[in-house]
Amino acid sequence: MTIRRVHRRDRLTYRAAGVDITANDRMVERIRRSLRRTYDPRVLSRHNAFAGLMRLDFAESLLRRNFRDPVIVAGADGVGSKLLLGLAHRRIRGLGIDLVAMNVNDVLTTGAEPLCFLDYVACHKLDPAEIAQIVAGVSDGCVQAGCALLGGETAELPELYRPGHFDLAGFCVGVVERRRIIDGRGVRPGDVVLGLASSGLHSNGFALARRALAGFWKRGRLPVDLGEPLVEAALRPTRIYVKSVAALLKRYRRKRVVRAMAHVTGGGLEGNIPRVIPNDCDVQLARGSWPVPPIMQLVQKAGVSAAEMYRVFNMGIGFVLVVRPAFAASVSAFLTRLGEAVHPIGRIVRGRGRLVWR
Amino acid sequence: MTIRRVHRRDRLTYRAAGVDITANDRMVERIRRSLRRTYDPRVLSRHNAFAGLMRLDFAESLLRRNFRDPVIVAGADGVGSKLLLGLAHRRIRGLGIDLVAMNVNDVLTTGAEPLCFLDYVACHKLDPAEIAQIVAGVSDGCVQAGCALLGGETAELPELYRPGHFDLAGFCVGVVERRRIIDGRGVRPGDVVLGLASSGLHSNGFALARRALAGFWKRGRLPVDLGEPLVEAALRPTRIYVKSVAALLKRYRRKRVVRAMAHVTGGGLEGNIPRVIPNDCDVQLARGSWPVPPIMQLVQKAGVSAAEMYRVFNMGIGFVLVVRPAFAASVSAFLTRLGEAVHPIGRIVRGRGRLVWR
Repeated sequence: MTIRRVHRRDRLTYRAAGVDITANDRMVERIRRSLRRTYDPRVLSRHNAFAGLMRLDFAESLLRRNFRDPVIVAGADGVGSKLLLGLAHRRIRGLGIDLVAMNVNDVLTTGAEPLCFLDYVACHKLDPAEIAQIVAGVSDGCVQAGCALLGGETAELPELYRPGHFDLAGFCVGVVERRRIIDGRGVRPGDVVLGLASSGLHSNGFALARRALAGFWKRGRLPVDLGEPLVEAALRPTRIYVKSVAALLKRYRRKRVVRAMAHVTGGGLEGNIPRVIPNDCDVQLARGSWPVPPIMQLVQKAGVSAAEMYRVFNMGIGFVLVVRPAFAASVSAFLTRLGEAVHPIGRIVRGRGRLVWR
Repeated sequence: MTIRRVHRRDRLTYRAAGVDITANDRMVERIRRSLRRTYDPRVLSRHNAFAGLMRLDFAESLLRRNFRDPVIVAGADGVGSKLLLGLAHRRIRGLGIDLVAMNVNDVLTTGAEPLCFLDYVACHKLDPAEIAQIVAGVSDGCVQAGCALLGGETAELPELYRPGHFDLAGFCVGVVERRRIIDGRGVRPGDVVLGLASSGLHSNGFALARRALAGFWKRGRLPVDLGEPLVEAALRPTRIYVKSVAALLKRYRRKRVVRAMAHVTGGGLEGNIPRVIPNDCDVQLARGSWPVPPIMQLVQKAGVSAAEMYRVFNMGIGFVLVVRPAFAASVSAFLTRLGEAVHPIGRIVRGRGRLVWR
């Protein structure tokens, strides 16, 4: 499917006679490298194939994962209006990481290992350097997530997209052994809620964040000390939790320590944690039990209510695990060793499937 | 992931306060039905899940497919500028079938059974009736392809898309037993090339087709008798070859009768058949060995050269099989019984990996 792009390029000549062929060849070579660095021996790369192929398992007994009842887990997502902020500041590459993150973190919540990724890029006119940069970013994200970038599609739609604009969609396939699916069914009152720190705004709420931040771009001094330029803080790529959480699940494979996981996307903590807990439980979070990132504080200073902030943004917690209380400390220590900032942010109580504050 | 959409709807309220909640609820209910009708017992539907789940296999011994070394096959594609023609004529639903077709036919070329599908719809402002119609079309395509519509993502990006515009991308996951992968390696001189009739323009070359057809929309009488209104002929959904070809592969499971398959998309026959034949073979096609659809003739009448027509359009052949000569007649009869119009369009000769005409 790399090759799908090469092919697409050839096909485009009839409507884009002006494209610089050398630049195009360089793009194709860069895209090829972007894909290759994400491959592992399970990828069956075939020249000119119509689709990307990847073995589910190694037949080699040494590496065999022994799926007995494999379940395919698939998700599709875009980066929303963070794209427009990235475009405005010509920070393209990070958006590729955001795209991968939005998808792989979703797939991860089920306990699945993300296997492969595909992207869709649609633009006004194919700019080889820009496409290569987008795909390089997607490749960065795939390396972080340990999944293979099997291919993608680039579409040139001059009547749909304005000059300089593009849209990005992504798609991730993972696999999980059926009896290891994590779906929140085992959640019990007393379970501990651990929050993993986000890297900032991630890729949600940008319709609001862009409006809120609009007044701050030209100012020398901001009402909140970000400790870095605003553009860095606002556009920092979404954190990818795959490697640490997958390592955790492997470590506690037999003990079913993790009972539910949520990816904190649009809707914030209250929109996402209740999705994975049973109807007879509430998730009770302790206010102030984790640090709210400066960029959130800045958005709030622009006049967004605290309630709205919590409804729209992750507020510093990008991924949530509900774990058996006896293992909370060891899970926390394990994930900390792997580089996560872990906060015990609450617990499960009897209730009606809601998020409540304490 | 149905539910991903429900959720997204909730999330949107902060920026789309004007949305009619009742219309939205109806949309969600219609989308739910559109997904459910595509499900088979392998789909593990979970309320509120972050991702769609589907078992690869039945554990029930009666139905077990016994994948020993399963290979995941994944593809991503859009419908290109056919979208703009569909939008202009407010023919939305068929575009969903096109979207599925572009993806599942690609996946099918490897010998894989398409398992599940996900869509990405991005628009200026969420119009519940329109989104429901798009997803209904995607669902139609999934029913035709026998694959499950596991979910999708709807994005509202008012600054990227103009009012009334939207873009569509799709992703398909299939699975194939490793030793049954069809990749053209077994192609030999003497093999027969069978073409399956397309339903018309399918979803490629519309940048050119729209320009060519522009002068014909207002005319009462066209220079080519289409036997139907122009809008029907131009926008007829892409044919989905999955059920007949999958039945064929199952029928000849042990005999390796099919040596290569190609989906005739952008680039036409010469852009796509050579992708799946070895470098020491040419594919030799016989001009006039199949009927060229009237819609292609009409496009050509607008002043497109024959060479360009063959470089851009499928010219009446939407899917190609390269088969062992001894089985060509029986394969042809089998596919004809399943409703395909099958044409022996050429054969494989010694060569250099090109398409040549005879």
